[in-house]
Amino acid sequence: MLELETERTELVEKIEDLIERKRYAQLRDLLLPMEAQDIARLCADLDEKVLPLVFRLLPKELAAEVFVELDSDQQEMLIQGFSNTELREVLDELYLDDTVDIVEEMPANVVKRILRHSDPEMRKSINEILKYPDDCAGSIMTTEFVDLKETMTVEGALKRIRRTGLDKETINICYVIDEERHLIGLLSIRTLLLSEEDDVIGDIMERHIISVQTLDDQETVARTLSKYDFLALPVVDTEDRLVGIVTVDDAMDVLQEEVTEDIEKMAAILPGDKPYLKTGVLETWKARTPWLLMLMLSATFTGIILTHFENALATCAILTSYIPMLSGTGGNSGTQASTAIIRALSLGDIRFSDLPRVIWKEGRVALICGACLAAANFVKMMLVDRWLLRNPAVTPQVALVVCFTLVGTVACAKLVGSALPLLAEKLGFDPAVMASPFITTIVDAISLLIYFQIAALVLGI
Amino acid sequence: MLELETERTELVEKIEDLIERKRYAQLRDLLLPMEAQDIARLCADLDEKVLPLVFRLLPKELAAEVFVELDSDQQEMLIQGFSNTELREVLDELYLDDTVDIVEEMPANVVKRILRHSDPEMRKSINEILKYPDDCAGSIMTTEFVDLKETMTVEGALKRIRRTGLDKETINICYVIDEERHLIGLLSIRTLLLSEEDDVIGDIMERHIISVQTLDDQETVARTLSKYDFLALPVVDTEDRLVGIVTVDDAMDVLQEEVTEDIEKMAAILPGDKPYLKTGVLETWKARTPWLLMLMLSATFTGIILTHFENALATCAILTSYIPMLSGTGGNSGTQASTAIIRALSLGDIRFSDLPRVIWKEGRVALICGACLAAANFVKMMLVDRWLLRNPAVTPQVALVVCFTLVGTVACAKLVGSALPLLAEKLGFDPAVMASPFITTIVDAISLLIYFQIAALVLGI
Repeated sequence: MLELETERTELVEKIEDLIERKRYAQLRDLLLPMEAQDIARLCADLDEKVLPLVFRLLPKELAAEVFVELDSDQQEMLIQGFSNTELREVLDELYLDDTVDIVEEMPANVVKRILRHSDPEMRKSINEILKYPDDCAGSIMTTEFVDLKETMTVEGALKRIRRTGLDKETINICYVIDEERHLIGLLSIRTLLLSEEDDVIGDIMERHIISVQTLDDQETVARTLSKYDFLALPVVDTEDRLVGIVTVDDAMDVLQEEVTEDIEKMAAILPGDKPYLKTGVLETWKARTPWLLMLMLSATFTGIILTHFENALATCAILTSYIPMLSGTGGNSGTQASTAIIRALSLGDIRFSDLPRVIWKEGRVALICGACLAAANFVKMMLVDRWLLRNPAVTPQVALVVCFTLVGTVACAKLVGSALPLLAEKLGFDPAVMASPFITTIVDAISLLIYFQIAALVLGI
Repeated sequence: MLELETERTELVEKIEDLIERKRYAQLRDLLLPMEAQDIARLCADLDEKVLPLVFRLLPKELAAEVFVELDSDQQEMLIQGFSNTELREVLDELYLDDTVDIVEEMPANVVKRILRHSDPEMRKSINEILKYPDDCAGSIMTTEFVDLKETMTVEGALKRIRRTGLDKETINICYVIDEERHLIGLLSIRTLLLSEEDDVIGDIMERHIISVQTLDDQETVARTLSKYDFLALPVVDTEDRLVGIVTVDDAMDVLQEEVTEDIEKMAAILPGDKPYLKTGVLETWKARTPWLLMLMLSATFTGIILTHFENALATCAILTSYIPMLSGTGGNSGTQASTAIIRALSLGDIRFSDLPRVIWKEGRVALICGACLAAANFVKMMLVDRWLLRNPAVTPQVALVVCFTLVGTVACAKLVGSALPLLAEKLGFDPAVMASPFITTIVDAISLLIYFQIAALVLGI
């Protein structure tokens, strides 16, 4: 596990040195014991020119595994350099779903070349999967799985697995289908092994099947797989015929991607699908500007409120200096509530019907939080602002105004922060969009209104 | 998959009705085809009093599976009501790592009762796992796995799996150990099935092993498993002896937990480990107040800056009304950068040595973003604030001050937002803590300083 950066840097230097001195056998011996993922990571740090050389040193199977893990830029470069025989060899070793992933990233001329050199069955399967829209079960499934018939014996099933299982991505779960390819049962390899040789599949298979449809959202698929602790999930078409399976490793990747997307949305970034350093400056700009712009323009309201109360501020200038603290605390309180709710929604811990319980809980939390902050703030304003910084304008009355506002702001922030994501979910919007920046803008305006109302009451301005 | 709330509510009503009319056979038939996870979810909505009744209707194996998925409150209630025989029956059906999870949540008297009714070997294993600190590989592993010897034949290995595999959580990967229990190889069930009966394990096993140590962080374990697409990862002690395995379903749960923790930290919440509605008001308050308090007090700096420039604000009161917009935009820009960096760090896409590349990228993004926002803002101030709202104080000079500040603020926010998480990572702190609220506070102060500097230059105040 090449987790340490220094270790990786040393290895890269060693590899480059071996190449320069043409010690290819030694280089091969160095790479052979490594995992494909680690070799791919090293390749990312190597000079592009030596990549084909390193690649050709590896045994076919390992080479294919490394190939899958490379960046799409590097994959493209390698494919461009491959002879037709080499390309066919690599394609033969790849699992179908990995090939599809690669095809999706390549430019048209490379795709054509890949399809031309895949065998006809593979080509058919690739085209089949490519026709499903992104982000649905069909696009992440593989069509390579072990299928059995209900009437087979355990012995027959094991023979079939020995005969056809070599190329399948997983043989841990086998799927039982009828003549029309309807999925009628499933069977773990464990059950197979623990059964008698002459048991009939139909008698020992599991008939309660959880499956997904080709057009189901990939996040639903991954969450279902994770909820039931499955290793693979069957994918059926609208007529309930088995067309593929989604394996647990792909589901894990989907969950990671979806979390990244949620986090990006919560930070007011339009979600992208490339790693940070691979995203160009213009792309990053495009993902970030729309929300910044919208939020900036919506701050017009706070501006109008401040202009409206210009006279009050002129009478009591010290009030101005607490505005950033108030809006900051309001924003943070709201962010805490909205984040907690958004995450709980995405984990399935709460639903819209919990709204009253959520409000009741957040209301009480807000009161205690607000009281604590107000008390601390009163002490701080008296001790630091008035006494230590010798600012005579910070009177106990002013401190009271700020503290009352604090309580009101925290309460509003928590309520708005917890209710909005739930409402968004109910209305079919993505709750993640209702996160921090959006709520901060609303809470900003509310807290200013509260501030001036209380100031008018207490200070009579 | 009981995803639909209405469907669930209907089912709960049906179950309660069947219980009332004492139609137990019908109730059993209704529950039997369901998955354990779904029954557990229904139980959460049922009256506590009927829970033991429902539980006793289920066949032993399914009952145990449902038990694992229940809330710890419900588990405790059930255990309290179990006869000794019932408790023993449930414990017999549980996997070891699930039993440990349950034991960890129960009060001392229940734990004692569980341990008293586990068989001696189970008791030893539970105590073994309980001794590891939370959040490390040892605490999430199971000690139930299939071990083989190097000298066995494939036939012998398959026999051993048939004899001992029934109780093991996974038989998909088998582990080969020597006399001193050192892990020397591993073997997938697939390889076993595809080999000849008289092949020797030592010849066909995989000798390049990726393993983790008992005290490794659980997040590292989960990430390793996910990176290499494994179904299980062996856990060894300091002397390289195999003590357990971590399975992919537990790794998925760990990844979800860690993400929740990261998201909470990024929203200035101290991470907890209970679902939202299960966390008490006081607990929620304790998790949220510390950061709110710290951030509130640190806003003292922005207060001091504003007090310092009180005269400038008095001369040109209109400047006040743009402060919330400036600090909001600064905060949002910083949040975008810090979130992108924190996520990239946690996915392993970037490391500290990428700092120059990150700064170079964020710098350029900031310039284009800033320029865009400034242009939009200039137009908006002239058209809306001056012309539409008829505020003569909004002169082109004032608009220029605000726009220049905007560019400077966005630039600072992006640079601070991207650099701080990287520095935190380098210094061994958790980068997630350097997220939105923290950076907003810093950027607030910086943007005010820029604002007044530029105002002094352009407006001469």
